[in-house]
Amino acid sequence: MHGFIGELFGTMILIALGTGSGAGLNLNKTYAKGKDWLFVSFAWGFAVTMGVYVAGVLGSDGHLNPAVTIGFAAFGFFPWSEVLPYILGQFIGAFLGAALVIIQFAPHFKASKNEAEGNSVGIFATRPAIKSPLFNFLSELIATFVFIFILLNLGDFTQGLKPLIVGLLIAVVGMGLGTTTGFAINPARDWGPRLAYTILPVPNKGNAEWSYSWVPMFGPLVGGLIAAGLEVLVH
Amino acid sequence: MHGFIGELFGTMILIALGTGSGAGLNLNKTYAKGKDWLFVSFAWGFAVTMGVYVAGVLGSDGHLNPAVTIGFAAFGFFPWSEVLPYILGQFIGAFLGAALVIIQFAPHFKASKNEAEGNSVGIFATRPAIKSPLFNFLSELIATFVFIFILLNLGDFTQGLKPLIVGLLIAVVGMGLGTTTGFAINPARDWGPRLAYTILPVPNKGNAEWSYSWVPMFGPLVGGLIAAGLEVLVH
Amino acid sequence: MHGFIGELFGTMILIALGTGSGAGLNLNKTYAKGKDWLFVSFAWGFAVTMGVYVAGVLGSDGHLNPAVTIGFAAFGFFPWSEVLPYILGQFIGAFLGAALVIIQFAPHFKASKNEAEGNSVGIFATRPAIKSPLFNFLSELIATFVFIFILLNLGDFTQGLKPLIVGLLIAVVGMGLGTTTGFAINPARDWGPRLAYTILPVPNKGNAEWSYSWVPMFGPLVGGLIAAGLEVLVH
Amino acid sequence: MHGFIGELFGTMILIALGTGSGAGLNLNKTYAKGKDWLFVSFAWGFAVTMGVYVAGVLGSDGHLNPAVTIGFAAFGFFPWSEVLPYILGQFIGAFLGAALVIIQFAPHFKASKNEAEGNSVGIFATRPAIKSPLFNFLSELIATFVFIFILLNLGDFTQGLKPLIVGLLIAVVGMGLGTTTGFAINPARDWGPRLAYTILPVPNKGNAEWSYSWVPMFGPLVGGLIAAGLEVLVH
Repeated sequence: MHGFIGELFGTMILIALGTGSGAGLNLNKTYAKGKDWLFVSFAWGFAVTMGVYVAGVLGSDGHLNPAVTIGFAAFGFFPWSEVLPYILGQFIGAFLGAALVIIQFAPHFKASKNEAEGNSVGIFATRPAIKSPLFNFLSELIATFVFIFILLNLGDFTQGLKPLIVGLLIAVVGMGLGTTTGFAINPARDWGPRLAYTILPVPNKGNAEWSYSWVPMFGPLVGGLIAAGLEVLVH
Repeated sequence: MHGFIGELFGTMILIALGTGSGAGLNLNKTYAKGKDWLFVSFAWGFAVTMGVYVAGVLGSDGHLNPAVTIGFAAFGFFPWSEVLPYILGQFIGAFLGAALVIIQFAPHFKASKNEAEGNSVGIFATRPAIKSPLFNFLSELIATFVFIFILLNLGDFTQGLKPLIVGLLIAVVGMGLGTTTGFAINPARDWGPRLAYTILPVPNKGNAEWSYSWVPMFGPLVGGLIAAGLEVLVH
Repeated sequence: MHGFIGELFGTMILIALGTGSGAGLNLNKTYAKGKDWLFVSFAWGFAVTMGVYVAGVLGSDGHLNPAVTIGFAAFGFFPWSEVLPYILGQFIGAFLGAALVIIQFAPHFKASKNEAEGNSVGIFATRPAIKSPLFNFLSELIATFVFIFILLNLGDFTQGLKPLIVGLLIAVVGMGLGTTTGFAINPARDWGPRLAYTILPVPNKGNAEWSYSWVPMFGPLVGGLIAAGLEVLVH
Repeated sequence: MHGFIGELFGTMILIALGTGSGAGLNLNKTYAKGKDWLFVSFAWGFAVTMGVYVAGVLGSDGHLNPAVTIGFAAFGFFPWSEVLPYILGQFIGAFLGAALVIIQFAPHFKASKNEAEGNSVGIFATRPAIKSPLFNFLSELIATFVFIFILLNLGDFTQGLKPLIVGLLIAVVGMGLGTTTGFAINPARDWGPRLAYTILPVPNKGNAEWSYSWVPMFGPLVGGLIAAGLEVLVH
């Protein structure tokens, strides 16, 4: 139960702050409207830092990400018995975080009539800069592989100031490997908010682009498995 | 008395550095004139870091914010007997910090003739990007709820390097949830400088917009109460 | 002797990295030419972080700044007997750091014919955004007062990760209070490089503007004295 | 063997994240296309942070850089017997990291027809902003001297949060002294990716500019030797 609660609130915090930064950059009349990938990278990075702190104190291991949970479980870094409550907490928390952002930015969604004005599923979920299924999948796989391989070498990342390092890890993965597909690197981070965008009443909303959603689901999962497998191999 | 002194100087530092960054971005002929929400977020974030260090060493708990003090007190995280000196220190310190900024930027206020040239209460207090009383209130409520719920899960945040994490928390709340109303998330941070702008002789000053000020007062207070209540609930 | 050596190399590092960032933003054909005060603030901030680490390991207290040394000495935070070697090290180190930048950017100084092309004493020393002797002096005084008052509440700032906090302190003072006069907040940081610009063979160099130099000398000294005096008072 | 493995994976991480940020800024249709030296500096900085963590846990000293390894060995800070496996790991890791970036950005290389569209060896290796062999060599020498002299005064930089400080050191060297030659300050960081660009099938690739490559090889090596020598001298 602690695992479920920790992951739920941790992921809610992560998504509220992360997709909120996307809303702030994209929607009309916000104070941050514009293009700034350093902003995106730091916002998602520190959003993860805060999610990890919250999850850690509430009693989970601060995964906030099914690709971490499953990758860790597959190679003995995490018990299989806890996988289900963790993943449930992650998806539900991500949905709730996105719901907060929909309320937070309601007047701005109303003021942004269509995709050209910044109102699209891209605020909530990832989209490829160039559509190319194979390479989009490889992009998510590689970015997640790098992310989780490093994460496995950070020690207990919920303690002390380590959540700051996890946040900077997310930020630099975003800067270095996130500019092709928008670095989901986390199925819950993509599907939870995508579902919220699909079923909640977002003003002027567009297509939720579920046809792409297999990429941010399976790219991260495979990347996480490879990372955890390599970690076992090199130690 | 230590609480009063700590909160007063801590909040003075916070506001001098924070509203100073607003003056630097907005007023004519400064070295930072322009639009840069990453700048705003980091400036306010590290301003809080420094305020927390100062307050902590001078003997307070480093709240710097009535929404923190009252939210904490309401749910047993802080003694009611200390609430009044804390809040007094916060408002007086905020006023003094704003006064320093008025002196610091005096030639630039003179060189900025009106709101179009960047001279407005927006340097000192918050304003909504889109006027919508209900949603502005909800924005401040949600941003403060997220902020204080995380803060409650950071442990003793005045010790060691934790004030850095508090600063990054403010920064990422600004990036993620601050682009709608300018993230007061703190009644003293809004009302202290707003009062300074109202009664001190700022060159070319405009309207102090007190009609909006109930939002940055009550949104943060309610958000803080919900955060502290939830914290009790989930533990 | 340790004090002299530590301050000399620490200040050399600080100035090489700090004025180097100014050269990179201003001179023609560098990779960073442009306007970006966040860049300026972080560069000077982390430059101080690194200078403090070097000075601390080499055996000084990591002041790197006569306003710190004299302010601390005047109120019993530092022995008067060490003041002279410290200040000598600071000015000589600052001069050497600026000399490195002159070599580093030699082709770029050649490619920048005059002030309009970014070649001016502003790379090395501070200049006011609006000339106004009294307010320029007050700006330096206030910024230095805030800086040194916080510094006095950071504990032993050369140990552990505290030099990072000192760096972020410089960064946020730059963001909040540095956009009026360019935040010398340190007589050695201004005069050492200004002297280097004056007597070394910088291609296409302009006026060294010594007529302004009393401001970055006495503003910081007075601000530091007030900060240290207040610190004694409130404890 | 631990040294070889640690340096290989650490440098692979460093280069995947670092050259990835270069690809993201330069190639067509990425989410970060544009000019932003703060982005470049932070990306390379935090890339080093993550590389040092990985290398440290896998059992090396986290050099990731032949100029560090050789400079340290020459003055007794590192055993000569380990130099060869370290340097081999560094070059092979750098090559592998660049290979990952070639896959990650394949559609973007295809969408960038030539150097004018951002497709050049500059994504992988360094180039001077102004061609001037002597001063380019001095630039790399000075930047590396400053970098390694500071590094020698950080204590054991793979432990605790010190890899964060090493990352910020790289970032500020980039901001302060990297805007002339693009701060290789590391022969493996330049030659490994340059070789990958030369022999791997990068779409629309241009000249690999090996004629310049002696600068990022020998500038850093000489700078590192001087830094280590000075460190011995002043202690």
